[in-house]
Amino acid sequence: MKVAIVMGSKSDYPVVQKTEDILKEFNVETETRIISAHRTPRVAEEFAKTAEEKGIEVIIAAAGKAAHLAGVLAATTPLPIIGIPMKSSTLDGLDSLLSVVQMPKGVPVATVAIDGAENAGLLAVQMLSIKYPELREKMKAYKVKMEEDIIAIDSEFSNK
Amino acid sequence: MKVAIVMGSKSDYPVVQKTEDILKEFNVETETRIISAHRTPRVAEEFAKTAEEKGIEVIIAAAGKAAHLAGVLAATTPLPIIGIPMKSSTLDGLDSLLSVVQMPKGVPVATVAIDGAENAGLLAVQMLSIKYPELREKMKAYKVKMEEDIIAIDSEFSNK
Amino acid sequence: MKVAIVMGSKSDYPVVQKTEDILKEFNVETETRIISAHRTPRVAEEFAKTAEEKGIEVIIAAAGKAAHLAGVLAATTPLPIIGIPMKSSTLDGLDSLLSVVQMPKGVPVATVAIDGAENAGLLAVQMLSIKYPELREKMKAYKVKMEEDIIAIDSEFSNK
Amino acid sequence: MKVAIVMGSKSDYPVVQKTEDILKEFNVETETRIISAHRTPRVAEEFAKTAEEKGIEVIIAAAGKAAHLAGVLAATTPLPIIGIPMKSSTLDGLDSLLSVVQMPKGVPVATVAIDGAENAGLLAVQMLSIKYPELREKMKAYKVKMEEDIIAIDSEFSNK
Amino acid sequence: MKVAIVMGSKSDYPVVQKTEDILKEFNVETETRIISAHRTPRVAEEFAKTAEEKGIEVIIAAAGKAAHLAGVLAATTPLPIIGIPMKSSTLDGLDSLLSVVQMPKGVPVATVAIDGAENAGLLAVQMLSIKYPELREKMKAYKVKMEEDIIAIDSEFSNK
Amino acid sequence: MKVAIVMGSKSDYPVVQKTEDILKEFNVETETRIISAHRTPRVAEEFAKTAEEKGIEVIIAAAGKAAHLAGVLAATTPLPIIGIPMKSSTLDGLDSLLSVVQMPKGVPVATVAIDGAENAGLLAVQMLSIKYPELREKMKAYKVKMEEDIIAIDSEFSNK
Amino acid sequence: MKVAIVMGSKSDYPVVQKTEDILKEFNVETETRIISAHRTPRVAEEFAKTAEEKGIEVIIAAAGKAAHLAGVLAATTPLPIIGIPMKSSTLDGLDSLLSVVQMPKGVPVATVAIDGAENAGLLAVQMLSIKYPELREKMKAYKVKMEEDIIAIDSEFSNK
Amino acid sequence: MKVAIVMGSKSDYPVVQKTEDILKEFNVETETRIISAHRTPRVAEEFAKTAEEKGIEVIIAAAGKAAHLAGVLAATTPLPIIGIPMKSSTLDGLDSLLSVVQMPKGVPVATVAIDGAENAGLLAVQMLSIKYPELREKMKAYKVKMEEDIIAIDSEFSNK
Repeated sequence: MKVAIVMGSKSDYPVVQKTEDILKEFNVETETRIISAHRTPRVAEEFAKTAEEKGIEVIIAAAGKAAHLAGVLAATTPLPIIGIPMKSSTLDGLDSLLSVVQMPKGVPVATVAIDGAENAGLLAVQMLSIKYPELREKMKAYKVKMEEDIIAIDSEFSNK
Repeated sequence: MKVAIVMGSKSDYPVVQKTEDILKEFNVETETRIISAHRTPRVAEEFAKTAEEKGIEVIIAAAGKAAHLAGVLAATTPLPIIGIPMKSSTLDGLDSLLSVVQMPKGVPVATVAIDGAENAGLLAVQMLSIKYPELREKMKAYKVKMEEDIIAIDSEFSNK
Repeated sequence: MKVAIVMGSKSDYPVVQKTEDILKEFNVETETRIISAHRTPRVAEEFAKTAEEKGIEVIIAAAGKAAHLAGVLAATTPLPIIGIPMKSSTLDGLDSLLSVVQMPKGVPVATVAIDGAENAGLLAVQMLSIKYPELREKMKAYKVKMEEDIIAIDSEFSNK
Repeated sequence: MKVAIVMGSKSDYPVVQKTEDILKEFNVETETRIISAHRTPRVAEEFAKTAEEKGIEVIIAAAGKAAHLAGVLAATTPLPIIGIPMKSSTLDGLDSLLSVVQMPKGVPVATVAIDGAENAGLLAVQMLSIKYPELREKMKAYKVKMEEDIIAIDSEFSNK
Repeated sequence: MKVAIVMGSKSDYPVVQKTEDILKEFNVETETRIISAHRTPRVAEEFAKTAEEKGIEVIIAAAGKAAHLAGVLAATTPLPIIGIPMKSSTLDGLDSLLSVVQMPKGVPVATVAIDGAENAGLLAVQMLSIKYPELREKMKAYKVKMEEDIIAIDSEFSNK
Repeated sequence: MKVAIVMGSKSDYPVVQKTEDILKEFNVETETRIISAHRTPRVAEEFAKTAEEKGIEVIIAAAGKAAHLAGVLAATTPLPIIGIPMKSSTLDGLDSLLSVVQMPKGVPVATVAIDGAENAGLLAVQMLSIKYPELREKMKAYKVKMEEDIIAIDSEFSNK
Repeated sequence: MKVAIVMGSKSDYPVVQKTEDILKEFNVETETRIISAHRTPRVAEEFAKTAEEKGIEVIIAAAGKAAHLAGVLAATTPLPIIGIPMKSSTLDGLDSLLSVVQMPKGVPVATVAIDGAENAGLLAVQMLSIKYPELREKMKAYKVKMEEDIIAIDSEFSNK
Repeated sequence: MKVAIVMGSKSDYPVVQKTEDILKEFNVETETRIISAHRTPRVAEEFAKTAEEKGIEVIIAAAGKAAHLAGVLAATTPLPIIGIPMKSSTLDGLDSLLSVVQMPKGVPVATVAIDGAENAGLLAVQMLSIKYPELREKMKAYKVKMEEDIIAIDSEFSNK
C-alpha cells in the first residue's frame, strides 16, 4: 500500500511532513513530491496519469492561495485525492480552502482543514483500510490511544 | 460493497438523492438514514458503532448550519466519513462548510463542496475502488464519458 | 451551586482560566475538565448524561475550529450550555464561532464572543441568579463596581 | 416564571412568534414588546431597569443589522439576556450576529443562531429550569419527543 | 467650536490620540472621555443628553468588537456622531465595522475606516467647516499641503 | 442650505430617492445628479471642484461594487462627503461597503449602512444643523416623532 | 487579431455572450469554446498548447466555484489570460473570485469582477490595442461614447 | 516598450520593487511613480491623460484599503491597467482586492493576487508580448526555466 504526497512548493514541507509522519506511523509507504499545477503542469499531468500503475492508491495534494493542485490531479487520475488547503500570507487560508473544496460536479477532492496535514494522513489510512484489514485495526488502536491520552491528561489536570 | 448515507433532516433529501443516484449508477448498495447529531445523539452513536460490522465501508453525512453530524460519526467509527455541508437559510452554507471541514487533529472528515451531493457519491466510489477493481474501471469509464460529453457539447456549440 | 467548565484541549486553559477566575470571584463551585467531542466521545456523552445528577447546574464548553463540544453536550443534557468559540491558528475564530452559534432548531447553545471566557463565567452567574438571590446581588455589585472603575479611569484620564 | 421578549421592529414578529410559541408550549408566561435601542432608548433603559422588579427572569432580544438591543439591555439589567441576531436585507445576518455575540468583557449576551427564534425560547426554558424543576422535567420530555419524532421519520423513510 | 472624543476603553487611546492631534492641528477644542456603552450606560446617556448644551458640536466615538458606543450616543443626541470601528484581538475589526456602520433607519453614524482615527478628526473638521469658514480655509490648505507632500515624495523618489 | 446627491448609475435611484425624501421633509434644497467616477471622471472632477462655490454644503454619493464615487469627490472638494454603499448583484454589498469606508488617511468619507439612503439624508441634516439651528430643532422633533411612533406601535402590539 | 473565449460549462454562456458582444462591437474575431479544466483536462492542455500558433492573441476564461480554468490555461500558454469568476449557486462568487485571482507567483491571471463579462472583452481590446492602433482609437471612442451617454442620462434626469 | 508603475504610498515600495525587478529581467523600461488617487487627484489625472503620448504601453497600479488608484487611472486612459491590491493593516487585503477587482461595467482593471507584485510584472510582459515577439520568446523561456527549477527542486528533494 502506497500513498503519494504532493506539495505545490518546498516551503509547504514543514506542514506536509506531519502527513508523512502519520503515514510512517501506520507503516504506509509514501512518496513525497514537489509538483506545481501552475509551474510544472506537464509533470503534474504525467504524475496523475501514471500514479495508478505505479501502485499508488491514494494521492494527497497540499497547495495554497488559488490552490489548483488537488483539482488538477483529480481531473486526470481515477484515484481518490485528498486536498490540504495551505494557509498562505494573506486571507488566512480561506482562498486555499475554497479553491480546494468547491470542486464542480464530477471531480471530487476530499478536503481536510486548512493546514490539516495530520488529518490528511489519517484520512488516507481510513481509505486504505477499506482494503487492508490490518490498517483498520491500527486505526482502531490509534483512536483508542488518542482517547486514552486525553483521558490521562484530563485525569491529571482534574486532580491537580 | 455498501455505503451509508446519513442526513440530519429529511429536508436535505432533494440534494442527498443525487448521492444515491450516483451510487446506484455504480451499483453500490446504499442505505439512507435520517439521523441528527443533536436531536438523536444515541442513534448517531449506535449507528457509528455498528456501521463496520453491518458491512458498511464508507459513510456519507450531510448536514447544515453548525453541521456536527459528520464529525460526530467520525469520532466513533474508524470508517472513512465523507461530509456534505448543506446550504441553509442563512450564510449561504459557509457555516456548514467550516463546521464540517475544520475538524481538529485526529478525526478527519473528507469534505466536498457545499451541496456537493454528486461528488460525495463519486468520492465514495473512488475510495471503494481501492479495494474493488471493477469500480475503478467504472470510474475510468465515467471520466471518459464525462469528457466525451463535454467534448460533444463543445463541438455542437462551436459549430453552430 | 456548581458550574462545569469543559475544554476541548489543555491548550485552551490560559483562556478558560478566566472563566474559573470569574466563577471563584462569585464563590461558585467549579469543576474543570478536558473532554474532546471528537477524541473522547464516550467521555463526553457520559459527562453530559450524569452532569445533572452530580449537581451541575450550568455547563460551559470551550472549543476551537469545527467546535462541536458545546453542541454535543447540549444534545444529551437538559442543562443550559454556554459555548466559548476559541480563536485558533487559522480563520481568526470565525470557524469556531459559526460551529458553536449556528445550532439547528431544538438544541440551543448560549454563545459568547470568540475567546469570551470572562463573559461565559458572568453569563453562568446570571443564569444561576435566577435561582440564587445572593448571586443576583453580587452581580448587581459587580456591575456597579465595573461602572465605578470606568468612571474613575475616565475621571483620572480627563483631568490629566 | 416570566420571560420578556423584545424586538427592535414589528417586522421581526413573524420570526419572534416562534419564541412565543415555544414558551407557551412550556407554559412560561411571556410579555412581548417592541422596543428599539436606537429609536426608543429611554424606553429600553426604563424597561431594563424595571424588568427584575416586574418579575421577569429572562429577557430575549431580537434585532438586526447593527443589532444593539440585546447589549443595551444587558448594560442595565443583571438578568440574563438572550440575543437573536435577525437576518436582514443585506449581509445575510452576519452583521447582526457579530453585533450581538462579540460583546466586550463584562456584559455577556447569550447568543443563538441567526433567526434562531425557537432556540431562544428553549434556552430561556433551560435557564429557568435551574430554578423550576417542573420545567426541567418538561425539557427532558421535549428532548425525548424530539428524538422520537426523528426516529419515526427515519423509520418511515428507511422502510419506504 | 468643540468636538468630544469618546472611547470605549483606555486601551483605545494610542489610536484615538491621532484624532486629538488632527483636531489640535486645526485649533478645534477637544474633550476626550472614556465612556463605555455597556459598562457605564448611564454616563453614556448623560453625556449624550448634555453634549449639545455644553457646546459640543460633533461627537467622535471609538469602540471595538460589538461596538455600540457610537450608536448609543446617536440614539440620544441630535448631534452628528462619527464612529471609529477599532480593530480588536479577533476578526480584524470586521465585527467593529459592521456594528458601527450598519445602523438601522433613523439613527445614522458617520463611519470611517477601521482604526481610521485621523480621518475621524478630518471629517469632524469638514462638518464644522459648514459653519466656520476659517476651518474650511484650513481644510483647503491641508489638502494642498497633503498634495504637495506626496508630490515632493514622488519627485524625490522618481529622481533618485 | 443645499445638499447634492450624486449616484453612479440611474438604476440606483429607487434607493437614492429615499435620501431625497428625507431632505425634502427637512426642507433642505437638493440637487440630484448621475455622475460616474469611472465613466465620467471629468464631470466628477468638475462637479467636485465647483460644488462649494455653487452653495452646496454637503455631498451624498451612492455607488456600488468597487464604489469609488464618494472617494473621488472627497479627493477634490473640502466639503464633507457622505457615502452610501449600494448593494449590487454579487457579494451583497460587502464590496461596496469596503470600497467606500476603508478610505486612506487624509481623505475621509462619512459612510452609512449598505443601501442606507434615509440615514444618509439624516446625517446630512445633522451636519447642516451645526450651522442652522432650525434644522437642529427639526431633527429633535424628528427623533421625538420616531420615538412616539415606536411607542405607539409597541402599545398597540402589547395590548392586542 | 483574435481572442479565444473559453467557458467551463455551457450554462455560463448567457453571461459570457456579453464578452462576445463587446468583441464583435470592436470587430475582434472570436472563437468560443466549452472546455472544462476538470472534466476535459486534455482538451484544455491541447487548447492552451496550440492557441498561439492558431493566431489567438488573448484568452478569456470563465468558470465558477473552484474555478481553475484560467489558471490551468495560464500554466501552459505564454499568452495573456483574462479570468472571469462566475457567480455560482453558493457563496455568491467569492469562491470563484479567490480561485481565479489568488494565483501563485509566476503564473498571473488578469482577473475582472465576478460575472464581469463586458469588462473581460474590453480588457482584451485594451491588450490588443498595444499592437493594433485602430483598436486604441476605437477604445477612445468607446470611452467618449460611454461618457456622453452618462452625461445625456444625467442631463435628462436633472432637468425632469 | 515601457511600463509605468504607480503606487499610492512610498510604503508600498518593498512589495512593488518586485514588479520592477521582473520588468528589468525582461528588459522592459519602467517608470515608477508615487501618486495617490485621493491625495494627488490632479497628478493622477494628468498622469493618466498623458501616459499614452509619453510612450507608456501598460500601467501597473498598486494601492491598499479602499484602493481606487487603478480604477481612477482606468477611467481616464485607454491603456490597459493592471491592479495590485496591497495587503494593509486590517482585513488582510480583502478590502483592497474588492476595491480593485469589482470594477463596474465599462472600465476594467486587470487584477492580480493580493501583494502579487511579480505577477503584475509578468502580466505586463504578456500583454506587451502581443506586440513584441522577443518578449514572447523570453516569456516562453521564463516558463521553461520556472518549470526546470521546480523539477530540480523536486528531484533533489525526492532523492534525499
